[in-house]
Amino acid sequence: MPVGTAASVKALGPDDLEDIGVGILLANTYHLFLRPGHEIIRNLGGLHRFMGWNRPILTDSGGFQVYSLATLRTLSEEGVVFRSHIDGSEHVLGPEKAMAVQEALGSDIVMAFDECPPYPSEYAYVRDSMELTTRWARRCRDRGVGENQALFGIVQGGVYRDLRIASAEALLELGFEGYAIGGLSVGENKETRERVIAETVPHLAPDRPVYLMGVGTPEDIVEAVRLGVDMFDCVLPTRNARNGSLFTAEGRITIKNAQYAQDARPIEEACGCYTCRHFSRAYLRHLFMAREILAYRLNTIHNLYYYARLMEALRTAIRNDELESFCRTFYENRNPPEQG
Amino acid sequence: MPVGTAASVKALGPDDLEDIGVGILLANTYHLFLRPGHEIIRNLGGLHRFMGWNRPILTDSGGFQVYSLATLRTLSEEGVVFRSHIDGSEHVLGPEKAMAVQEALGSDIVMAFDECPPYPSEYAYVRDSMELTTRWARRCRDRGVGENQALFGIVQGGVYRDLRIASAEALLELGFEGYAIGGLSVGENKETRERVIAETVPHLAPDRPVYLMGVGTPEDIVEAVRLGVDMFDCVLPTRNARNGSLFTAEGRITIKNAQYAQDARPIEEACGCYTCRHFSRAYLRHLFMAREILAYRLNTIHNLYYYARLMEALRTAIRNDELESFCRTFYENRNPPEQG
Repeated sequence: MPVGTAASVKALGPDDLEDIGVGILLANTYHLFLRPGHEIIRNLGGLHRFMGWNRPILTDSGGFQVYSLATLRTLSEEGVVFRSHIDGSEHVLGPEKAMAVQEALGSDIVMAFDECPPYPSEYAYVRDSMELTTRWARRCRDRGVGENQALFGIVQGGVYRDLRIASAEALLELGFEGYAIGGLSVGENKETRERVIAETVPHLAPDRPVYLMGVGTPEDIVEAVRLGVDMFDCVLPTRNARNGSLFTAEGRITIKNAQYAQDARPIEEACGCYTCRHFSRAYLRHLFMAREILAYRLNTIHNLYYYARLMEALRTAIRNDELESFCRTFYENRNPPEQG
Repeated sequence: MPVGTAASVKALGPDDLEDIGVGILLANTYHLFLRPGHEIIRNLGGLHRFMGWNRPILTDSGGFQVYSLATLRTLSEEGVVFRSHIDGSEHVLGPEKAMAVQEALGSDIVMAFDECPPYPSEYAYVRDSMELTTRWARRCRDRGVGENQALFGIVQGGVYRDLRIASAEALLELGFEGYAIGGLSVGENKETRERVIAETVPHLAPDRPVYLMGVGTPEDIVEAVRLGVDMFDCVLPTRNARNGSLFTAEGRITIKNAQYAQDARPIEEACGCYTCRHFSRAYLRHLFMAREILAYRLNTIHNLYYYARLMEALRTAIRNDELESFCRTFYENRNPPEQG
């Protein structure tokens, strides 16, 4: 899922996303709650109509952004009191409110309201936090969502195996339409992250989607798919695009590098995206150096196309029972990281 | 002609421009000469291929930007020595060099190298400047351009009727494939501008295009068309779009105004542009307030579509001998300027 924080995948229109073959995107409840406000979006016919996007949308619960962006937070059993990072105004979010806001937005997948502990955190803190997340998950499920909305629970428990398992089992007991692994990609190393995924997935429902939140690089995604994850969201393809870092089967290229100034080739010869079908690396470098707005759009189209094809290839490999040979080829194609 | 200063009409791709029905665009020789450099563009197959645009391109001569953007200018019979506004590097542009640069760019219409005197300027200064522009025009014509390129001369002479007529007659004597009126929209009032246009056009060739440089608002264009002008370029539709000022048949709207926060209507009900077919004023206001990059693209699409339809309507009116009734309707539809 590309990230459309404020009801827009940065620099792209829904026409671009459809051309790329994006099937679902994520929007941030925290941002839309603050601006323009969920009531306005509801009155305008919901988020799909507001942003002109007819395919599925997943909204997060707002919790993660409250912890990472807002200020002056007060956490209690009820929820979180915080100040907006935009204008300092005070707001409250909790399980019931997060459900109500996402119902107003009208997303297809609603995420339960959770607490995401900082990393690293002591066992006792993470245990208490996970137990709060479980109580909040129950309140979210009891509140319920709109009739065409699916509700996903979020497994927490930090890097502690028994807490992750306890969290997963409690959520399964409550019953959700999908399960997310939250609280990763917050500073832990790759080995720890993959260990936690490996320890958690077997305790989730095999017939329900498993969603790893906020991950990641192409390598991270390939490894998580190997471990049984089905869904991802990450700002990496879009944010990197805006910074001129472009994904290819061989690794990333930094488009501002002087070596591309006269390079008539597309970013990637084999790529079928709009950008690669029409423009040279030299033109993309020029747009980036001249800070032309079009650079953001063309680079983002390419990176999202790369990710969409990667996910497509992973689905095909799974369907054909060729995931391991796909992964071998994936790693063989990659160059050592580019210098500079 | 929308303005594509640095080989990009800001925020749009060539796909957007084609959808809008843009038939020709302008690119700035000064900017492309400095970055990425005309030799690089030549080596990459010319400007059309570089920017992925297959329809006509007009390039200006670079002169106007040297006077308005560059620093430390020294003007002589030979040309202009100046320092780049990007990195302070020293460069020379003159008639022959401006032709060579535009030949390398491969534009369809090449503009002669001229001097554009500041406004207001004394008669003697403007006379000498106009005579220099005439000598430079001869050198441009003598140097010649590429075989598929047309060369336009530029009439100067400030606000002085006899100088404008002398300039026009000298250029016609030299013979160009089109004639531009330069040196307007530099601070003179509307009455003066229209007087100069009215005094100049009858002295140009009736079978050649007349191009009014750097103009203007929809009203300016309608008046100039009435006076016999055929072609225009202006940053107004694109720059205003990026500032959230949107053109409609009734006048401009300022999309950030609070009155649009919950407005489900498109910018203009009758407009067929991509933006109006898919998005509400409320969404466009939200994107603008959230400084989303998509705001620039969607607003620019609308404003250029507005201008493209205006020009189309003017051509139809001329063809049907209905220009005066068209103009009456055009003015009747317009509201008094919006407050705030």
